[in-house]
Amino acid sequence: MTQTLGFAAFSAVAPLGPWSFERRTPGPRDVQIQILFCGICHSDLHTVRGEWGPIAYPQVPGHEIVGRVVSTGAEVTRWKAGDMVGVGCMVDSCRTCPSCEEGLEQYCEVGMTGTYGGVEKQTGLPTQGGYSNAIVVDDRYVLRIPEGMDPAGAAPLLCAGITTFSPLRHWKVGPGSRVGVVGIGGLGHMAVKLAAAMGAHVVVLTTSPSKIDDAKRLGAHEVVISNDPAAMKAIANSLDLIIDTVGTSHDLEPEFALLRRDGALCLLGGSPQPHHYPGAFSFIMKRKKLAGSLIGGIPETQEMLDFCAAHNIVADIEVVAASAINEAYERMLKSDVKYRFVIDISTLEA
Amino acid sequence: MTQTLGFAAFSAVAPLGPWSFERRTPGPRDVQIQILFCGICHSDLHTVRGEWGPIAYPQVPGHEIVGRVVSTGAEVTRWKAGDMVGVGCMVDSCRTCPSCEEGLEQYCEVGMTGTYGGVEKQTGLPTQGGYSNAIVVDDRYVLRIPEGMDPAGAAPLLCAGITTFSPLRHWKVGPGSRVGVVGIGGLGHMAVKLAAAMGAHVVVLTTSPSKIDDAKRLGAHEVVISNDPAAMKAIANSLDLIIDTVGTSHDLEPEFALLRRDGALCLLGGSPQPHHYPGAFSFIMKRKKLAGSLIGGIPETQEMLDFCAAHNIVADIEVVAASAINEAYERMLKSDVKYRFVIDISTLEA
Repeated sequence: MTQTLGFAAFSAVAPLGPWSFERRTPGPRDVQIQILFCGICHSDLHTVRGEWGPIAYPQVPGHEIVGRVVSTGAEVTRWKAGDMVGVGCMVDSCRTCPSCEEGLEQYCEVGMTGTYGGVEKQTGLPTQGGYSNAIVVDDRYVLRIPEGMDPAGAAPLLCAGITTFSPLRHWKVGPGSRVGVVGIGGLGHMAVKLAAAMGAHVVVLTTSPSKIDDAKRLGAHEVVISNDPAAMKAIANSLDLIIDTVGTSHDLEPEFALLRRDGALCLLGGSPQPHHYPGAFSFIMKRKKLAGSLIGGIPETQEMLDFCAAHNIVADIEVVAASAINEAYERMLKSDVKYRFVIDISTLEA
Repeated sequence: MTQTLGFAAFSAVAPLGPWSFERRTPGPRDVQIQILFCGICHSDLHTVRGEWGPIAYPQVPGHEIVGRVVSTGAEVTRWKAGDMVGVGCMVDSCRTCPSCEEGLEQYCEVGMTGTYGGVEKQTGLPTQGGYSNAIVVDDRYVLRIPEGMDPAGAAPLLCAGITTFSPLRHWKVGPGSRVGVVGIGGLGHMAVKLAAAMGAHVVVLTTSPSKIDDAKRLGAHEVVISNDPAAMKAIANSLDLIIDTVGTSHDLEPEFALLRRDGALCLLGGSPQPHHYPGAFSFIMKRKKLAGSLIGGIPETQEMLDFCAAHNIVADIEVVAASAINEAYERMLKSDVKYRFVIDISTLEA
C-alpha cells in the first residue's frame, strides 16, 4: 500500500482539507505516479458538494493529473520511472464492450470508473482523485505528456482539453468550418484554442464585452455579444458547430438560430436544471442537431495531447498552493480565473 | 390561363368547398398537369386552420399530387403528354443557393415556394394546391411516377414518403440498423415500410395495443407499448435512430432513453407547442443527438419514388370523393384513417 497525502472534501458543505489515505498496492499492470500538478475542474466542485448526486466522504477530487512515473508493474512495457504522464477522468472501464473496444471508454456500456467518486475494482473502495501526491493507475488509462510540454499547463488538457477536442473531431471541424464557442471558461478557452488550431473560423459568444480582447488573444476571429439581438442576427444561419460549455440552465434558442443547415449545437456542460430548448420547427427547417459529448476516449486523449504539442497549446492557468483550494473554488464560482486553477501538488502539507 | 376547379378553404373555421380559379398561362419551362389524385396531409389542416400562422383565403391545400401531363412548354424535354407525374410540397425555390445547388431545395436559403400557401413567382399570387383538377409547375419540380405504380397509392409518397425517406437516408439506415418509429399515421406507416425495405430492424412505439398487428403487417419487427415502462426499459440503449412523427407536444425523454451511443432522435412533426426535452446529461452521456428533417429535395424525392417502385411500396390509403374532404379532416383529427386519405380528383364538382 502507498501512503498518500490528499486534500479531501469531508462533507457537502465543509471546506476541503488535508487527508491521509492509502493507495492500493500496485499490481503487475499498474503504474505508480508521483503527482506534480492537478487542475481544478468545475465538476470537482459539483461532485464534492453533492450537486450531481450523493457521494461518499472523504472524497479527494481531481481528474486533471500530471506527474512522473515512480514505478511500474512487471507487465507494463510502455512506461519507465521518470516518464511524464497524465491521468484524466477515467482510471478503468470494462474493456470489452463495443465502446471500450472502439477506444471510446468514456461511453463504456458497463460504466467507466471515474478517477474519483467511482469504485476501484481492485479494492472495492471509492476511487480518490488527483488533489494528492500519489496515484496508482492501470497502464491502459495512463497518457503520455509530450516532451517539452509544460506539465502544469498540460494538466487541464486531461479534462478541459479532451472534452472540447473530442466534439470538434466528431463534428469534423477543419479549415472552412465556422465554429461558435459559448462560455469562455476552462472548457471554452480550450475550445477556442483547439478549433483555431484545427483551421476553423472561431466565433466566441459571450455576454461580457470585457472578454473580447482576451477571446481574440486565445484565437477567436470574431466575438459576438450574445445578449445583443442585432449582433446575433448578423451571424444567424452561419455556423457549422457551436460548442456550448455553459453548465447552468440557459436559453438555447438564440444560439440555435446561428446554425446553418445541418449545423449542430453540442452541449458539454452538465446543467442539472433544464435548458430552454428550441422548438420543433427550429430543428426541422434546417435539419439542425442538438447534441452532447462526454470527455473523450483514451486513444483520442493521447491524440489531443500530441495535437496540442504540435500546435504549442496548453491551458491558460493560475497555479495555486493546496492551501488555496477552497478560495479557488469560491473564485471559480465567480468565473474569477483565467482560465483554470492548477494545484502545485508539492505544496500539499498534512 | 387555365380555368381550374378546386376545393378551397375560405376561412380558418368554415368548411372547405368548391372554388373556381385560374392557373397561370404555362411558360416555356412549364408542365401542365391534369391532377388525378391528391393526398390529404395533416399539414393541410394545420395550414388552412391558421395553426401555423395566418394565411390568405381562399386557399386550396394539397401537396401530394399525382396526375398526367397535358402539355409541356417549348423548353421542356423530360416530359410528354400522357406521362404520369407527381408534385410534392415545393413548386419552386431560388435554384442558385448552396442548398438548391445540392438538390436540397427544401432548405433553400431564400425560401422554397410551397405548393400551396406560397407566392407564385410568375404571378405574385398565392400558390394553390392539389385539391384541384389542374396545376402548372416548372419542369424542375415535377417528379416521375414509375411505370406500374398505383397512382392513388403513390400520391402520399410525395410528402409522407419523402419526409420519412430523407432522414432514413441522412442517418444512413441499412441492414444492421435498429430504427424506432413513433406514431403510426400517415408518416409513421411509411417510415415502417421504408426502414424495413432498407433492411433495418424496425421497432414501432405506440400507445395503442390495437395497432400491434397492423404495425407488424406494415413491416415492424417489434412493437413496444410506449407507456409501459417495463417494455420501454427492455429496449433501452438499443436503437440507432428514432423517427418521431408525432405533431403534438409530448415527452421526448422516454424515447431518447432507447437510443444507443451516437443514436439520433429525428423530429418530423411540427408541433407548435414545446415538447418536454431530455436533460443535458441525456445528450452528453452517450453522445446522442436530437434532430429534425424537412421533406426532401427533388433528386431525393425521385430516388424515393424509384426505391418504392423497386420494393413494391405505396401508401396504405382510403380513397375519398372531394365531397368527403371535410369529413376526412374530422376523421384525421381522430386518427381514424389507415393511413392516408387520397382524394379522387375526378369527383370534384363545381
